[in-house]
Amino acid sequence: NQVNAVIEAGLGPQIACFAHDQFSIPKGNLSEPDGPSLYIARSCQEIRVHYFEFEDGLYYLTTENGVVYQTFCDMTTNGGGWTLCTLGDRWTSQQGSNPLRPDGDGNWNPGYYDIKAQDMSVWYIPNNKPMKDWNPTAILRYHTETHFLSQYGGNLYELYHRYPVKYNVGEPLTNNGPSIPIVYDHGDKETTKAFYGPYAQREFEPGFISFRAINLERAAMAICSGIIPKGRQVDAYCIGGGGHFPEAAPKQCGDFTSFAWNGYGTHKGWSASKDMLEAAVLLFYC
Amino acid sequence: NQVNAVIEAGLGPQIACFAHDQFSIPKGNLSEPDGPSLYIARSCQEIRVHYFEFEDGLYYLTTENGVVYQTFCDMTTNGGGWTLCTLGDRWTSQQGSNPLRPDGDGNWNPGYYDIKAQDMSVWYIPNNKPMKDWNPTAILRYHTETHFLSQYGGNLYELYHRYPVKYNVGEPLTNNGPSIPIVYDHGDKETTKAFYGPYAQREFEPGFISFRAINLERAAMAICSGIIPKGRQVDAYCIGGGGHFPEAAPKQCGDFTSFAWNGYGTHKGWSASKDMLEAAVLLFYC
Amino acid sequence: NQVNAVIEAGLGPQIACFAHDQFSIPKGNLSEPDGPSLYIARSCQEIRVHYFEFEDGLYYLTTENGVVYQTFCDMTTNGGGWTLCTLGDRWTSQQGSNPLRPDGDGNWNPGYYDIKAQDMSVWYIPNNKPMKDWNPTAILRYHTETHFLSQYGGNLYELYHRYPVKYNVGEPLTNNGPSIPIVYDHGDKETTKAFYGPYAQREFEPGFISFRAINLERAAMAICSGIIPKGRQVDAYCIGGGGHFPEAAPKQCGDFTSFAWNGYGTHKGWSASKDMLEAAVLLFYC
Repeated sequence: NQVNAVIEAGLGPQIACFAHDQFSIPKGNLSEPDGPSLYIARSCQEIRVHYFEFEDGLYYLTTENGVVYQTFCDMTTNGGGWTLCTLGDRWTSQQGSNPLRPDGDGNWNPGYYDIKAQDMSVWYIPNNKPMKDWNPTAILRYHTETHFLSQYGGNLYELYHRYPVKYNVGEPLTNNGPSIPIVYDHGDKETTKAFYGPYAQREFEPGFISFRAINLERAAMAICSGIIPKGRQVDAYCIGGGGHFPEAAPKQCGDFTSFAWNGYGTHKGWSASKDMLEAAVLLFYC
Repeated sequence: NQVNAVIEAGLGPQIACFAHDQFSIPKGNLSEPDGPSLYIARSCQEIRVHYFEFEDGLYYLTTENGVVYQTFCDMTTNGGGWTLCTLGDRWTSQQGSNPLRPDGDGNWNPGYYDIKAQDMSVWYIPNNKPMKDWNPTAILRYHTETHFLSQYGGNLYELYHRYPVKYNVGEPLTNNGPSIPIVYDHGDKETTKAFYGPYAQREFEPGFISFRAINLERAAMAICSGIIPKGRQVDAYCIGGGGHFPEAAPKQCGDFTSFAWNGYGTHKGWSASKDMLEAAVLLFYC
Repeated sequence: NQVNAVIEAGLGPQIACFAHDQFSIPKGNLSEPDGPSLYIARSCQEIRVHYFEFEDGLYYLTTENGVVYQTFCDMTTNGGGWTLCTLGDRWTSQQGSNPLRPDGDGNWNPGYYDIKAQDMSVWYIPNNKPMKDWNPTAILRYHTETHFLSQYGGNLYELYHRYPVKYNVGEPLTNNGPSIPIVYDHGDKETTKAFYGPYAQREFEPGFISFRAINLERAAMAICSGIIPKGRQVDAYCIGGGGHFPEAAPKQCGDFTSFAWNGYGTHKGWSASKDMLEAAVLLFYC
């Protein structure tokens, strides 16, 4: 028969098809009023589509390997189904310890690499806000709609394998990673631009999210959020730098990074605004 | 003294005794009405025995290393104390990415390797059911009673170290892993058999759970659930295949595996029933 | 004295800038009545300071890499903000499988290595107590106030990189790790001493927590809790032994360690009290 023929020809089946599971068919409204349920779902999108959950909040997800974990689902932006995959509030000061560097040995939010997604969403929320206030108090929210992640392996873990965030991978501008146009959910190009320092504003255009930007010293930054770099001083407007910073002088506690080069939150020279420095950045997949 | 004598003789103490902790003595009924409590327990069995929790649901467990995690406990089947150790709903289509392969680099549900157990239980539940409906809507539930896991290291992580699920580890039938008789909690041998395609039914006997089955191409599958293989077309009735599939042609999303070789859910030829294809498989330890 | 000598022999001061985030400014009382909130906080201390949570219980924390996990926060002892970083109830019997050994390949509670802390707290709670009874039923609770962790990398993961818990790292007493004076929250030096066997009591002084103690066979133990070793039989009063125990004879389940060398819980000879053997040890950072 057909199986025999194919197997004898050395053609065993090999399938990788995660985002669209043809075996999953919704069975009705199964949401539960009394607390979170352990759904068998790899992403917030699956919870929305298969279990009809439409409220923002914490949900249980299960990875391909059966790891159960909890994360925040944005069930409202642009149709909902956005999975929080990583977050941080100090990326501007973490050049030696990059929360987005896939070749590090750190532990990861399972969603960071387990989910196969098409688009990303980014939230800037003021520090020290509880979850229920994240959406209403966000100072910037935007998402992509180009399905660009499908081209780069389906998540940032895969994207950064293709565009490593480390020293000496290439030239500024020439070897930067992809830049993707964004759609604003809160704020616009002008507010995006205004978060950065006046000198930095001359070096980028708002309206994009950009990955792996290289500076004039050949060090790399992970994300330029809300902008596309047009210059080489990417330290002043990109975050999550990683790899080797050559000849970098060790800095003392209390010093600031390039985001605060001309004073903390002064919004002068290269210094970003206080609002941006005091915000956490949340990355979502969908 | 005695310690000196023994230590000087090179006999330092070395103990590994996890499942039965002689230091743990129940102190009374300590269950809490107001939400899950963080018990210091390595398994659902310990929660049942030491904390007198008898309801199915999510519980906190702590690993040997103090990792706190949550998983589902079946507190009713055959006396209760079954810990959900892994689950998946696409194992029939995951031959290159095996959720049970212990030599992969994936993250695991801590219970998969942390718990030392004696028996296993398996549930088939229709896709997209919330937790509260798992038990009542299961299409198949069975468990072992032979304490076989004790012979293979106490969990699947250890069992698969002894029986690696990879290419070219031996001959079909001759080098398959252990097959263990099962006791049915829902369904029976006939319903088990009926889930698989007519051609597949000629190649196995129901009433067992079998591990590491090898096909005629020397590729390996992780589990033959509910059956013992008597043939070489194990792709059609075993799941969680792993390792190298020689000369495999890449297939596109939307293709089916051997479980649906003669059409999706047709239950003809090698094709399994739609019920099986649209069910998630949950594995428990006790 | 010996403590000073050991501390002064340690590594030079290292600046770690995590515990005090200059970008984080409290914005008001944001605690939520309806269940735990996903705060963006690396430690219980941050939750206390930035989100004004003052109740003991389970809280969500997020690691530097955005991993969301839950752990127990002690929000009351000495001002509060203590993060449970690891726990275990069988350390006296785990010499081949050390829950504190940083060079193992086990998974860890993220707080164990993610948090940068200054001090430690230790609780002994009777086995099989639910979380709400931990504090009131503890048989011993103490904490440090010297900020010693700052000198050793900010957590035990870093401390044990500097003082590896393995065979043949040095001589007893001469090469033991640091010993830090403690302040009692429940119990005192006399009750500490009384937990150990009469022979063991001759070999230590209470009122300290000590790290990496070496025995006369050159094997190492991770922690001497509540005491500073003055002898070489550290197996009888230190826990979490790791590394290679030379020529160790395998023992059967049911055997006891040195803590019960002269009978289980007899409190005679080298045997510790039944209360200590039947208690779990919880380690906190602050």
